[in-house]
Amino acid sequence: MRQLAIGVDIGGTKIVAGVVNREANIIARYRTGAHSGTLPDHVIACVEGAYKELLGGSGIRPEDLVGVGLGFAGHVNGRAGIVITSSNLPGWDNVPLRDIVQEHLGVPVVLEHDTKCNALAEHMYGAGRGVDNMCYVTLSTGYGLAIIIDGKLYSGHIGTAGEIGHTVIDVNGPLCSCGKRGCLMAYTSGVGLARMAFEKIASGADTILREMYGGDPVRLTGRLIAEAAQNGDAVAREVITTAGYYAGIGLCNIVHLLMPELIVIGGGLTRIGPMFMEPCIQGLKENVHPVLFESVRILPWQLGDDSGVLGAAVKAFVTFDEQAGSK
Amino acid sequence: MRQLAIGVDIGGTKIVAGVVNREANIIARYRTGAHSGTLPDHVIACVEGAYKELLGGSGIRPEDLVGVGLGFAGHVNGRAGIVITSSNLPGWDNVPLRDIVQEHLGVPVVLEHDTKCNALAEHMYGAGRGVDNMCYVTLSTGYGLAIIIDGKLYSGHIGTAGEIGHTVIDVNGPLCSCGKRGCLMAYTSGVGLARMAFEKIASGADTILREMYGGDPVRLTGRLIAEAAQNGDAVAREVITTAGYYAGIGLCNIVHLLMPELIVIGGGLTRIGPMFMEPCIQGLKENVHPVLFESVRILPWQLGDDSGVLGAAVKAFVTFDEQAGSK
Repeated sequence: MRQLAIGVDIGGTKIVAGVVNREANIIARYRTGAHSGTLPDHVIACVEGAYKELLGGSGIRPEDLVGVGLGFAGHVNGRAGIVITSSNLPGWDNVPLRDIVQEHLGVPVVLEHDTKCNALAEHMYGAGRGVDNMCYVTLSTGYGLAIIIDGKLYSGHIGTAGEIGHTVIDVNGPLCSCGKRGCLMAYTSGVGLARMAFEKIASGADTILREMYGGDPVRLTGRLIAEAAQNGDAVAREVITTAGYYAGIGLCNIVHLLMPELIVIGGGLTRIGPMFMEPCIQGLKENVHPVLFESVRILPWQLGDDSGVLGAAVKAFVTFDEQAGSK
Repeated sequence: MRQLAIGVDIGGTKIVAGVVNREANIIARYRTGAHSGTLPDHVIACVEGAYKELLGGSGIRPEDLVGVGLGFAGHVNGRAGIVITSSNLPGWDNVPLRDIVQEHLGVPVVLEHDTKCNALAEHMYGAGRGVDNMCYVTLSTGYGLAIIIDGKLYSGHIGTAGEIGHTVIDVNGPLCSCGKRGCLMAYTSGVGLARMAFEKIASGADTILREMYGGDPVRLTGRLIAEAAQNGDAVAREVITTAGYYAGIGLCNIVHLLMPELIVIGGGLTRIGPMFMEPCIQGLKENVHPVLFESVRILPWQLGDDSGVLGAAVKAFVTFDEQAGSK
């Protein structure tokens, strides 16, 4: 049995790749910087570069590898290996990413939504060990969800299940990056934080954010808003507690629909800490029946940033082991 | 193998029971009228009456029966046999209905949410035959959802999965009967239709509904509003098309989260016809990515009103056959 997989975490602002063994150790890493706004070709080149550098730099041979797992932030048809679309990365419509990368590398490649990769990692190695029915929620640039039922990832008919970021929570609400109104991620993701902060600034609110972001929308990130809030800025603080509460509304909808035993919450926004997480739990508590609130456990992720790479590698192990077993 | 089960459909306004064979024929029926507002004891007495009458009137012996299935409209912990709460039936909080009825009748009883019973029936005998991953949506007094994954009912950790009626779709919206704001069913169920119609009447709108309902809130039902709309009342028509569109927003959230192969839509509101169903499909189409819209099939229920009784009986067959098999 081949002992290694390469997991590649293709995020909205960076790509991280790692060689992973079956004990969930990352034995080599590679990272490229922001590629936001670039074309698929550039991302494919990054994946290829990571693959070659990882093989060259660590004495690993292609015959040690079970394959490559790609975790991607966007609508993904994992079964067909196709990126349907991504609201964060322009130019990604109906791209057969799996086959393109596979042809370049000459090894088996599997594609999956990045949040589903995180979920697989937390289920096998992190906060969700031993739990059969769980959800994993990522609160970062977007608001992602992965569903594990009877110990297996549930991906739905065309592999897109879990697109909670574009569920509607405010039908008369603000425009989302997808062009629809009132999507959850328009409130509670990095995108949502920036939108709310921008509205406050534009309406003349008294806030240090105006100076901090300097008129450049790219700089108005969750991290910047958190920094302002930690420096005592009341407007930034209000944006974060509002976003936290809406994140809890998202949890409420998950509990009502799926009633998992456990929800693991990860992603960059969780690093803001209690200022974000307390209103999030409050948003859940105030919007579900007490019996439901008491019956679901909420835990933070254990693997942190590594869960993307680990999960993409786990996806490769699971997929190609199964294929080998069924031959 | 015992060849019969009794299925009992306990709705917001009536109870229907039937003796069902393994070919899905209802060979005897019993129906009681409205019990809205009565206490659990009354409902239990109805179930008991149905059981005795069905046995007495049709020559069926208790030893022919595998057991009794109860389908109930409200929050249900099917695994524990407990009614957690019901927004339509006051006085139903933490009632161990399964055990109470089982003790009265002296035969095995199983309790399940009524929508889940409908889904089982449509999956085994109706529009969902042969489909492994499907959802069943009921649009009636409430807005219910049941999820079938890999051919089995998914009920979640405490058996409450599918409570879509109380998912939030308008965080700043109107009060729902559950006491929260902006629940889906505050817009698009029988309850939602009545709420919207009442607001129009109260604000002085020109509508025949005012005279038709005569100031009695109990008479302001989906059926009455549909009747007014069919008679050309513009206000009633607007209420129905709005409710239909919101029903489509609910479908949009289901597609995003679960991406089933098929959604079967049933329940009394579907009888209104195109005036309700066309904006419903429009609400779905306008709020999901075209690839998702093209990938999901939407079909009407096939079993109609019988699906409640059939499904409760199917639940009894499945549950008690499994228990017999594992002994």
